[in-house]
This record gives sequence, structure tokens and C-alpha cells, in this order.
Amino acid sequence: MLIVMQKDATTAQHDGVQEAIRSLGFEAIPVPGPSRMAICVVGNDGPVSEAPFVGLGGIAELIRVSQPYKLVSREVHPENTVISVGNAQIGAARPVLMAGPCSVETESRTLEIARQVAAKGAEIFRAGAYKPRTSPYSFQGLGEEGLHTLKCVRDETGLAVVTEVIDPESVDIVASYVDILQIGARNMQNFSLIKKAARAGLPVLLKRGLSATIEEWLMAAEYILSEGNKNVILCERGIRTFSTHARNTLDLNVVPLVQSLSHLPIVVDPSHGVGDRNRVRPMARAGLAAGASGLLIEVHTAPDTAYSDGAQTISVEDFEGIGRDAELIAGLEDL
Amino acid sequence: MLIVMQKDATTAQHDGVQEAIRSLGFEAIPVPGPSRMAICVVGNDGPVSEAPFVGLGGIAELIRVSQPYKLVSREVHPENTVISVGNAQIGAARPVLMAGPCSVETESRTLEIARQVAAKGAEIFRAGAYKPRTSPYSFQGLGEEGLHTLKCVRDETGLAVVTEVIDPESVDIVASYVDILQIGARNMQNFSLIKKAARAGLPVLLKRGLSATIEEWLMAAEYILSEGNKNVILCERGIRTFSTHARNTLDLNVVPLVQSLSHLPIVVDPSHGVGDRNRVRPMARAGLAAGASGLLIEVHTAPDTAYSDGAQTISVEDFEGIGRDAELIAGLEDL
Amino acid sequence: MLIVMQKDATTAQHDGVQEAIRSLGFEAIPVPGPSRMAICVVGNDGPVSEAPFVGLGGIAELIRVSQPYKLVSREVHPENTVISVGNAQIGAARPVLMAGPCSVETESRTLEIARQVAAKGAEIFRAGAYKPRTSPYSFQGLGEEGLHTLKCVRDETGLAVVTEVIDPESVDIVASYVDILQIGARNMQNFSLIKKAARAGLPVLLKRGLSATIEEWLMAAEYILSEGNKNVILCERGIRTFSTHARNTLDLNVVPLVQSLSHLPIVVDPSHGVGDRNRVRPMARAGLAAGASGLLIEVHTAPDTAYSDGAQTISVEDFEGIGRDAELIAGLEDL
Amino acid sequence: MLIVMQKDATTAQHDGVQEAIRSLGFEAIPVPGPSRMAICVVGNDGPVSEAPFVGLGGIAELIRVSQPYKLVSREVHPENTVISVGNAQIGAARPVLMAGPCSVETESRTLEIARQVAAKGAEIFRAGAYKPRTSPYSFQGLGEEGLHTLKCVRDETGLAVVTEVIDPESVDIVASYVDILQIGARNMQNFSLIKKAARAGLPVLLKRGLSATIEEWLMAAEYILSEGNKNVILCERGIRTFSTHARNTLDLNVVPLVQSLSHLPIVVDPSHGVGDRNRVRPMARAGLAAGASGLLIEVHTAPDTAYSDGAQTISVEDFEGIGRDAELIAGLEDL
Repeated sequence: MLIVMQKDATTAQHDGVQEAIRSLGFEAIPVPGPSRMAICVVGNDGPVSEAPFVGLGGIAELIRVSQPYKLVSREVHPENTVISVGNAQIGAARPVLMAGPCSVETESRTLEIARQVAAKGAEIFRAGAYKPRTSPYSFQGLGEEGLHTLKCVRDETGLAVVTEVIDPESVDIVASYVDILQIGARNMQNFSLIKKAARAGLPVLLKRGLSATIEEWLMAAEYILSEGNKNVILCERGIRTFSTHARNTLDLNVVPLVQSLSHLPIVVDPSHGVGDRNRVRPMARAGLAAGASGLLIEVHTAPDTAYSDGAQTISVEDFEGIGRDAELIAGLEDL
Repeated sequence: MLIVMQKDATTAQHDGVQEAIRSLGFEAIPVPGPSRMAICVVGNDGPVSEAPFVGLGGIAELIRVSQPYKLVSREVHPENTVISVGNAQIGAARPVLMAGPCSVETESRTLEIARQVAAKGAEIFRAGAYKPRTSPYSFQGLGEEGLHTLKCVRDETGLAVVTEVIDPESVDIVASYVDILQIGARNMQNFSLIKKAARAGLPVLLKRGLSATIEEWLMAAEYILSEGNKNVILCERGIRTFSTHARNTLDLNVVPLVQSLSHLPIVVDPSHGVGDRNRVRPMARAGLAAGASGLLIEVHTAPDTAYSDGAQTISVEDFEGIGRDAELIAGLEDL
Repeated sequence: MLIVMQKDATTAQHDGVQEAIRSLGFEAIPVPGPSRMAICVVGNDGPVSEAPFVGLGGIAELIRVSQPYKLVSREVHPENTVISVGNAQIGAARPVLMAGPCSVETESRTLEIARQVAAKGAEIFRAGAYKPRTSPYSFQGLGEEGLHTLKCVRDETGLAVVTEVIDPESVDIVASYVDILQIGARNMQNFSLIKKAARAGLPVLLKRGLSATIEEWLMAAEYILSEGNKNVILCERGIRTFSTHARNTLDLNVVPLVQSLSHLPIVVDPSHGVGDRNRVRPMARAGLAAGASGLLIEVHTAPDTAYSDGAQTISVEDFEGIGRDAELIAGLEDL
Repeated sequence: MLIVMQKDATTAQHDGVQEAIRSLGFEAIPVPGPSRMAICVVGNDGPVSEAPFVGLGGIAELIRVSQPYKLVSREVHPENTVISVGNAQIGAARPVLMAGPCSVETESRTLEIARQVAAKGAEIFRAGAYKPRTSPYSFQGLGEEGLHTLKCVRDETGLAVVTEVIDPESVDIVASYVDILQIGARNMQNFSLIKKAARAGLPVLLKRGLSATIEEWLMAAEYILSEGNKNVILCERGIRTFSTHARNTLDLNVVPLVQSLSHLPIVVDPSHGVGDRNRVRPMARAGLAAGASGLLIEVHTAPDTAYSDGAQTISVEDFEGIGRDAELIAGLEDL
């Protein structure tokens, strides 16, 4: 930590800060500047608490030098993490396509969608059995009946299956039916849920919160790794900004950034990222071109009749086109 | 709902939209404009689903005319809701002061803080026993031991007590110790938690999420009311914006706006709103002047040694000053 | 325009609104809803002013149905606008690469950069002679000397040249030296400057403001077209959001959206969009994959010694790689 | 400046950074941390350029320690700046009320508004003669005719007058008619305009840009002071955030913050800050309670017929109420 003193800090205040540093067992190194003094804290093995300094006089600013995350950091673990689920390798060279309707629907219809996306290149099926909805009056998902349907999908198509968990109570039951647990954007900092999901042992797909910084997102992943579960897939799905022309602002800038900071794979969800089926394919292309390890896309055999999120759900034909796009974009040079 | 057609929509597309409206059992009223047609949906008793229209050709935009919330709306319930807790009346003319340390600390220290804030005008004590923390390595609260301490505070000082619940499992145990359940900003759309908290029967203090719109916030409150619990206190605590000079951007604009849209009381948390103890008192004043029904403030007898959030925790002396401010501001004319 | 009445609006208020509509020469069509009435304004040839309605009682909301822009709209002009500058065709099938240092530097160094980017596929050279800088103490550009150097670049390399204009006074002098006038992000709503630039007759490259909505951006372009200049190139360069991990948040979502709303070409500036040279190439790829008609990139033969913006300036080698990326991405199917 | 090295930086990289520091004439002080090294730059008299370090290997982050502004800083000039205009003292203990219609209207109507706001406590009259409008088709102001009217207002009522300048060409003519030049939010970083306005010698009211950080805003003020004009009034008028329930998000948090960082007075514009006349008075109260040195309010004798911004313009009666609010709030203790 670096402690920047005020320009007019007194000698007593400088001494007080250095005394406080030493009383924590660390070393204080004063660094004179053009108009003020800074004091470096040296000798700490982990993060330094700000509390002992807050009340001391003469301090202008406390600046953290180290990142607070550890297990997710590429500095600690330089090689890419590759997660095997079913036949898919998430984080390897070839991008993985995850597709399906927003909600699990009737068994026959869900199976039909699954068969078709499998035929067009999807390796993982995703659909929601439990839906967190803004309104208490909206459709809340089929619950355990939906989980049964997801198991049928897995048995009949061989696709791995991902679905969202929305509370700690239902983690175990959900985990008994599927291959990957999804933590939704609204729950990115629901730490009780995240810890319970981590302990289920399955890979966890962790969506970025609507207003989450990179640091907060990686710290949420750190919760999972600190429970002993190394298989975390990060998913960018759009952030909330002043710009209301799209449902969210898909923030592809994070793809290369997360890849430099962390060893975990990152995938992109263009469906929630733009919220309009007409722009899903261009943004899917952009996500892959930015280097994402995969896509999560809402696809339906009859998007206009989808139980939820129909406006952003694409057809199987469009999904097939994205598969062709992915082939071509995979030809880009490694960076 | 109003359906705006594209400028070049064909007659068949216009007919298709009107047909879809009628097949839902509603009436379609075409409204010609200067360069395009709009079609009004009439006869619906509740919200109209967008799904049947998404796939139809020729549509430029779907515009909702009604608000999606109902029980929280002032249109449905014109009188202010006033919530009685202990000796306090939240939502009545006089603003209510809620104060305490961020986290419950040792019993003696917590009791000492409670006695002092009670002596300076606080009517409700707040402190966290379970803390949702960005980092898995940060102090996570004292848990049930903290709840015992909160009960002591209530018994010894007569203050009502509010504390945060962070998962559905612990709602019942928390509810057995305190007077108001707090839902934190990160959990504003943790609907499993909200519904469980609502059913505990106690008043619920619902903090606004970091990037929650007014509509999402009121819809989260609607979840509580739809469970049969009418006692919701809304709490503005700052939103996340591009502006990083403060921990959050305290959005006082919502105070008069929420009061016009809803009958529920709204209080302001300037401590989280600015994140810097030097600016808590000016923003507390501003919140009261904007018309808030109360304040939620982090106060400590020794802020620099607080277990958490020390940087934004004020002294008892400052809190006493806010009490004097509140007296004076209460003299403003009713609007 | 649609006027939504309050739930409890009186008959007199309904009549008042309809009377106001008729007194403007329009027709009023009442549309009854489940809990309230809406009134459509019909018969207007252009936008309806809100002012006559603001003070009337009983109104809940005024909703605009038509877009305020006209000349830039694809509805008015369905074919893509293609702008010819030098040998480049901006808005045609093949993306155009614009490259150069942030600031014009010495003549020999600037020429050397120009020759190298020309050899690697750039068709347009861009560098700033007048620099708008946040600090009055930062380097403000070489001014007219820089313009001379840009003319040399054009004469010696055959590249077309784009540079920024920062005030109305200097528009004519700048226009006498270059091929395209750039309006910077900070000046997107500097209407005096925009109108003067429009009247110079050259194509105008209009950067999106840091917090500009699509509508505001297209309205700024409308100012240029309304001065009789049809050659506007829109440039997405990142917006300001809560996310501070990059200098800006490059908002690629707007590429397909602008293409659906307007006939004007849109290019992407990944250099300002991320502000870090290590992420420029991935985001350049993403911009092209999203469908942009070109890229604007800061390139230097010795980025570390650039006069300004060195941190986001890439090497000629990286630029050459982007040229190869562009070739491959151009193979994506048309949408 | 503090240079944080990567965890795995080599000795050669450490040496390279220290060498680069010394070659700039500064001293390098290495500061070892738990997992990485930081290197402090010492001996610089002003800001250190980042450019020489960007290309060096092994650097994780460059951290600035000093603020970039100087003349506006309270550290340089500890006493409050108080600006005398007409009979008003902006920045003194008593808040100053500035009021008037959005646009200058007919002479008789404008004079009538001026007389009424003067009678209710306004000391400064503000109205726009030149209006920057999002649409080229909206009313653009009366121009010089409006300036004549403003002069009449001054002559007849004794009120000082503030109006907006929108381009460098018209600064001199505007300055010949009024007492304070306003720089609008859209022009906060229109540096050509700001410098020209600064040189006119009149006080400058500098509105905060829609997405301006505190640092950018103070740097824009620094441009004015660096031209030799010390009389700058800062004006908070709302920022752009995800929250669209109000025209802007009035950011009152900046009031105490700017007062701690700078000696310049800050006033609040609640009219643009909320954009809805029903919430202007509560937010005016809040602005004063936060400590603002004054208010800028849109007031009209007949708000519904205002030439522009009628929706956010209050009546004279409401303005009178704000005057009474100001009296009461002025009784708050000094902080």
C-alpha cells in the first residue's frame, strides 16, 4: 500500500503514519515528491487493512498496489484452465457453442430444439428451469419438471446441460440433473448461493453482474475457487450503462482483459448482451473475434412462441450461420 | 400497449398485427400518423405480453403504457404507508434516525455505541451480524453471536433493531432476534431471499441495487407485498455511475419521485452513498431536505477501529449534529 | 404522440387535453385502457411540441412515436451511402483502414509512418494538428505546421488525409489542407463547429460523444446533412460507463444498430475504445466482425516515443496483422 | 508517480525502469512488496509523462500520486474565492439565487419575469439568447435581439445577468451585454470557447459536462484560471447515468467534494438536474442543504408557454417558496 500525505501534513502527522505502519509489523519507506510526501508500506504478506490509517491526520489518499484476488489470477496459475464437460473442452483452442431456449418448455418441444441445435454444432444445451424474474407476476419456470426434461435432453442427445440455480436450497437437486451450474447476473454477489454451488463439485458458469467491475467479478470467482472448485467459466452478458438502445451494453473489451488477468475461460452471451434477435449474430461474431472461448445463445425452433425472452431468441437457421461464422473466425492468428 | 408500425409496413402486415391483437381477445384501434401507423391495444385487464408480436413483420416498436407494479403504487393506495417499529413511526411527518456500526462488534462495545446513539436521538439500531463481502478473505460477520448481541441492545436500550439477512436459510433465526429485516443492495433481486424475508412477517428494509432502475426496485418491493407483507421501507444508498470520486453516487432525485409513484416510505443511507465520513453529514442534510422519511447512518464510538467500513463511519458527535440538522430541516414547508 | 392520462384524471381533464390537441390543428383519438385512458395525436406532419400539454392537469406521460431525425434515416434513404475519398470507398463492401499517429510529429517521422502504413494497407492517413487536451499544460498540437506536414503526406504517399478541427475559426484553413474533417468526441454537440465544418464541403468524420445516445449522435449528423453535406462517416470510439478497466467502453452494439437506423457508414476506433495497445488488435477484429465499414487506428513506427497517446498506439507490425485479420473477416457471409 | 512491476518481472526489467527514470533526471526508489516490487519516481517538479514507460517490459501499472490541477486547487489557494457580481457575492455565506426563463422571450414578457423574480429574492437573472439544441429543427434562440433584452433587464431591474456563449466568435458581443458568461454542459471541454470566454474578463459560470469527472471539470476550470481569469463559478447540473427516470442524475455528492478540493464556489441547477418541475423544489432544498453557494433555476410567469424547457420550469410562486427554504436552511451549522 502507498499512503499519500497531504501537502501541508505536519511532521507529527508523518510520524504518526509511520508509527502506525510499524505497529502493524511492517516497514515504512518515505518517498518525497515535488509537493508532498508518500509513504510505502513494505513487508506485508497479504492485503493491508485501511482501518488503522483512516483516522490519522494528514493523509490525502490510500492507494492499493496489489490485486485482491489470488487463486483466479494468471500470475498464480499461468496456464489456461481448460474445463471438460461432456465432449466439450471449454478454454481450449476451439470455441464451444452453448444453445437452447431461455426457459425449459414442454418435453417434446425442448427435445426438438436440443436435437436441432446439436445437429448444427452445439455441444452444450442450456435452458432455465428456475427463472429469476423482475416481476412476481411473470412466468417463473417449470422447476423440477424442467430438470427432468433437461435430463431427457442429455440422455437422448448426448449434449451436456447447463441450467441456472437461484437459491442455496435447490443447488443439490439441480446438481443431480445437470452438468454445469449457472449463476445468473443478478446473483453474481449472492455469496451464499455461490459457495453452495461451488461445493456441488460441478463446473460453474458465472455471469457478470449488470454493474460488476472486473475486480468484483473475479472476486466472485475467487469465492468458488476458495471452496476447492477450480472449474469456473466466466460469461460476459452485457452491462448497464446510460445507453438504452440495447437491453444491455455487451462489453467485449473484457474478453482480452480477463484473459490477461486470469487463467479462467471466458464466454460471451450476445443474446442478453443486445436483447434483440436481429443483432445477435453480428455480436456473436464480434465476441468470437475478440477471442472468447465460446458463446451462450438463446435459440428456438419457433422463437415467436418462446415462453420467455422471445425478442432476443434466434432461429435454428441463424444459429447454424453462427456455427459457420465460428469456423471462419477460428482461422484468425493466435495473439 | 401501443404498437408502432414501420413506415413501409404493408397492408398485410398491418392486418397481421390487428389479427394477433384480436386473437388475444383484445381490441385493435389503428391510429394514423404523419408517416406511419400506430395500433393501440385496448380491452386488456393486465399487462399485454410482447411475445405474440415479436415475430410479426412490419413492427417498429412496442410501447408499454401502464406501469408493471400494482400493490406498491400510489394510484392503488393513495395514502402514505406508516410503519410502526418500537417507538418509531417510519413514513410519518418526523424523520427517523437509524444508526449503529457497520458490523456487530463485541457485546460491550456494541452496547456502548447503542446507548450513545440512543441518547442522541436514534430510534432504531442497525448493525450487521452476517456481512456479504466482495472478498472471501474479508471479515464475514459474527453470525448468531452477533444476533445475541443485537437482542441485548434491544433489551437494554429499548431501541428497535434492524439487521441484514443474506440467505433464505437464516431468515427465521434472524427474524427471531430483530425488529426489521434488511435486504442489502447486492440482494435486491435475490427473489428467493426476498420472498422468504417477506413471509417472516417483520417489516423489510429494501435497499436499492447498485444499478437498479426505479421500476426494478418497486418490482422487488412488489414481491414483498404480493406475499402479504405491506411493511416495506425503501432505502436509497447510492448507485454505480461513471463517477468514481465517491464510493457510489447518492441519487437523491429518487426521493420525491418514489414518493409520487408509491405509498411506501423511503429513507436515505448517506454512509454508503458517499463512502467518506467527511461527506456523510452534508449528504444526510441533503437527504432530509429532499424529503426522506429517515436516515440510516454508520456511527461508532471509535470509527477508526471499526470492524468494517471505518472510512465511512462517523463519530457520535457528528451523529448528534445530524440530529440537530434534522430538527431544523423538519421546519421546511410541506410540499 | 401518445398522451397517457392519469388513472384518476377527471372528465374535464380529458376534455382539456383533447381541446389542446384540436387547437393545434390535429385530431385527438381517445384509446381506453384497463385502468386509464390514452389519447393519440393524429394529423401532424412533423414532431408535436410537448409544451402545450405540460401544464394541463391529469396527464401521466407524453410518449413520442416518431424518431426526430430525418435526413440521416434509412427510412428516408434506404440505400447505403458510400463516400469516395482518394482511392477509398467508405461504406462499400470492403472495410477501409485509416491509420497514423495521434499527433502530427516532425515531417520526416510523420512521412515515415505514412509510408509504412500505406505499404501495409492503409488508405487514409490520420493525425492531429490541433489537439483538444484535458489539461492546459499538455501538448496542444503543432497547428498549421502540422497541416503542412499532412499535405506533404498526401503529396508523397497518395494517401487521403483526415484531421480534427477544434474551432470554427480554423475550419477553412484546415479544410484547405486535408480530405476529411474530423469532429472529436468532446465536440459532438458543438453545433457551431459542426455547421461550419459541414459547409466546408469535405466529408466529415463524426465521433460519438462519450455519453451520447444513438439519437443524439444521429441528430448531430442531421445538423451536417441539413447544411447540404451528405458525406458523414460515423465513428464509434467508446463510451463512458462505470467500468474503468479500459479508458472507455467500446460499444460495438451500435454497429448493427446504426446500420439499421441510418444509411451512413460507421467505422470503429479501437485505440480510444480500449486505451491499451495490447487490446487494440482483438477489438479491431471484433469491430470488423460486427460489420464496421472501416477502422481508425493509432499506429506509430516507435509507439513508446509518440508525442501523445503512446499507451494506446500500436506498432506497424501489429497494424499489418490487423490488415490480415480484415482480409479473413471480410469472408463472413453478408447479413 | 509509482510504477508497480509485474510479479515475474526480470532483474533486467527492473533495471530498465530505473534507468528510464534516471534518464528523465529523476530519482528511482525501489519499494519491495510481498509478491512484487514497486518503484517510486522522486524529484520531479511537475507531472511525470507516462510515455517513456509504456513500452518497457515488466510493468504492471503506473499510478499517479499528484492531482493534475493546480490553480484551482485549495491546496494552492486555501481561502474560498468570493465573486462579486452586481449586488451578489457568490461563494460567501449567504446562497445566491439565479433565476429566469430557459430562453430570452419577448422583451415585455422577459422583463415581467425579471421583475417578479427580483421581487422574490433573485439577485442574478439568467436566460439564453443562443441555445445549443440537440435538433437542428428546434428553436435556436433569439440571438443578438435577446442580448438587447437582457441589457434592458439589467437596466430596469438592477439584476446582474448571466447568459450562455456557444462559440468563440460571439464571445465579445455577448460579453458587451452581460455580467457573467455561461459555458454549457455540452461545451465543458470546448477548449477554444473556454479560453476565449476566459479572456473576456467577466466571471465564467462553468457547467459540469454530462459525463465529466471531477478532475476533468476542475481541469476545464484550470484552463480559465491559466488565462488569468480567477472568477469561475462551478455549476452541477446532473450527470448521465443508467437511471432514466429523470432527465439527468443530479449529483449532489460533488458539492462537499469540490469544496474540499477547490477554492472556487459551486452552485446547483436543479432544473436541468431533474428535468421535471414537480421535483425542482425538493432538489433545490437538497442542493442548499448539501452546502451549495447558490442555485440556478428556470422560472417563468407562465411555465406552460415557455419557449423551451417548459416541463422543468417552475412558477414564480414556487420560486418564492425556494427563497423561504433558503432562509431556513441557511440556519444550519457551519461544517
